Amino acid sequence: MINNHCAVQPDVVLTGDRATGPLHLGHYVGSLKLRTRLQDEYEQTILVADMQGLTDNANHPSKVSSNILNVVADYLAVGIDPSKTTICLQSQLPALAELTMYYSNLVTISRLERNPTVKSEIQTKGFGRSLPAGFLTYPISQAADITAFNATLIPVGDDQLPMLEQTNEIVRKINTLAGKPVLSECRPLLSHASRLPGTDGKNKMSKTTGNAINLGASEKEIRSAVKSMFTDPNHLRVEDPGTIEGNVVFTYLDAFHPDASYVADLKAHYQRGGLGDGTTKKILEECLQELLRPIREKRAEYLSDKGQLTDILAKGTQVARVKTEAVLFSVKDIFGLNLF
Amino acid sequence: MINNHCAVQPDVVLTGDRATGPLHLGHYVGSLKLRTRLQDEYEQTILVADMQGLTDNANHPSKVSSNILNVVADYLAVGIDPSKTTICLQSQLPALAELTMYYSNLVTISRLERNPTVKSEIQTKGFGRSLPAGFLTYPISQAADITAFNATLIPVGDDQLPMLEQTNEIVRKINTLAGKPVLSECRPLLSHASRLPGTDGKNKMSKTTGNAINLGASEKEIRSAVKSMFTDPNHLRVEDPGTIEGNVVFTYLDAFHPDASYVADLKAHYQRGGLGDGTTKKILEECLQELLRPIREKRAEYLSDKGQLTDILAKGTQVARVKTEAVLFSVKDIFGLNLF
Repeated sequence: MINNHCAVQPDVVLTGDRATGPLHLGHYVGSLKLRTRLQDEYEQTILVADMQGLTDNANHPSKVSSNILNVVADYLAVGIDPSKTTICLQSQLPALAELTMYYSNLVTISRLERNPTVKSEIQTKGFGRSLPAGFLTYPISQAADITAFNATLIPVGDDQLPMLEQTNEIVRKINTLAGKPVLSECRPLLSHASRLPGTDGKNKMSKTTGNAINLGASEKEIRSAVKSMFTDPNHLRVEDPGTIEGNVVFTYLDAFHPDASYVADLKAHYQRGGLGDGTTKKILEECLQELLRPIREKRAEYLSDKGQLTDILAKGTQVARVKTEAVLFSVKDIFGLNLF
Repeated sequence: MINNHCAVQPDVVLTGDRATGPLHLGHYVGSLKLRTRLQDEYEQTILVADMQGLTDNANHPSKVSSNILNVVADYLAVGIDPSKTTICLQSQLPALAELTMYYSNLVTISRLERNPTVKSEIQTKGFGRSLPAGFLTYPISQAADITAFNATLIPVGDDQLPMLEQTNEIVRKINTLAGKPVLSECRPLLSHASRLPGTDGKNKMSKTTGNAINLGASEKEIRSAVKSMFTDPNHLRVEDPGTIEGNVVFTYLDAFHPDASYVADLKAHYQRGGLGDGTTKKILEECLQELLRPIREKRAEYLSDKGQLTDILAKGTQVARVKTEAVLFSVKDIFGLNLF
């Protein structure tokens, strides 16, 4: 693990989300809940990544633009507090684009093509040879995002580690060119939560595969999602023993039910037989309804005043602008380009 | 030739130079002289391309930064008038970097790899697989430069035509996305002047190969450059007939001597024999000394007041900033990203 972090400076946390759809329970478990804690301990910035969202959505940009405020409402609804966390919009921070340009000269095409995360995403998205340049180069843009805030602690899943490695390579090149430490290396804050599967139990929960429960889901949507949830296909009669592994209802109960010992009892009961999927689903549904009701209500309230939401985002972006321009200035200084 | 130019709108001219060295006679013949005429007919912008200069100089950035003001002094010395021409600095125009990011999503890597100009430059520079991303993608950055000024008429050599084609492809994609003409297609203003060879007669005049006569060359440098100039290697005795083709002295006399019929007489004399290289070189030297003396003097004068030079560049850049931000706004509007 790359770790040149200097213990004297307090950590700066950066996270973000591509604004390509409303956030869902996968985001909640994997990242949002953590951010509500991190904001009390660290200087934290959250970047609404609209420009990165366009790297594979340039032909239907409204998928991005229409979701910017939804994502901000999601943040606020789960308890991210704009007085503690800087929430800002990527497309309104020119320094990020400028840093990307400078860093592009320090990274080779073959290095980008070797990036495992990009490789697997190219395959998933079926780009083949018609890969947009912006998609291949987005690790450079991510490095710009991270360094522009001097972020040192990046909450990520392990699939994102190659991105941080690329960022630190750029940081070292810049610092070598400067002959002094101008940018800080970052290190991952690896999530302990395993990735939440979608309701179909096949893939991770995702905006695009229709297996997600959004944070703003209605009572009815939650009910129907839980009803159709993948359990144990061989558990045909209530009295039969059932399997826990791969049973999404139990995965969700583990993730969301507040009483772990109660869930442990349920599991034991299910495994020895006599507990039906209808019952476990009802327990899960109640738990999710309880979790999501206040979030849905707050979310709707925030979205009912888009002027105020925009204002929160604009204020955070102004704070971010000052920070990112300062870093851009230091980098341009290395290249001798602060003429006026 | 791509030409969707609307005859009603007056043409906007954009040119520029990578700030990687002082300008030389090749620039003078190929482009600078023309620009002093174009500024009287068109809205003209000249971009000092410092960021593009870094695409293959990131490891020795002072090669770029130390030449920015030299290039501006070169412009002023040859008669480019900042009250007629907007002279501006690429690195101080964030909209160019931002447009590059948006356009990057519209161009595939394989399209960039097919660009003949980039292909041949990759070969010349010996990049191989360690090609910097910023170098492969610089046609996108050039498209950003051109469109950011709504430039429609681009003085280029024919080796640059693929760049304009790439630009117009992006323009059409943007206009299609917008459902209306937001950006203007550009067309080349092809130079009639053939490319000036270097003093060695081998390659085009270039900053890097040591075969250039800079606009700021001293009297002594000019003399020594002409003395060492490539002529006819078989023209050993004055009385022998000499060859004109490939004889750099005559190529330069054609390019720089004000009296074409006098040069025609000289050529005839040289071809029938009896005219020595010493004499033709003396004539050329006088002609170049006369051409470059006032340019050198003005150049030195401008460079003696770097504050004033910087001020000229800063003022032009301010004008350019307003123009380019307006175009960026229109493009971001297509993507729905002008939230605040």
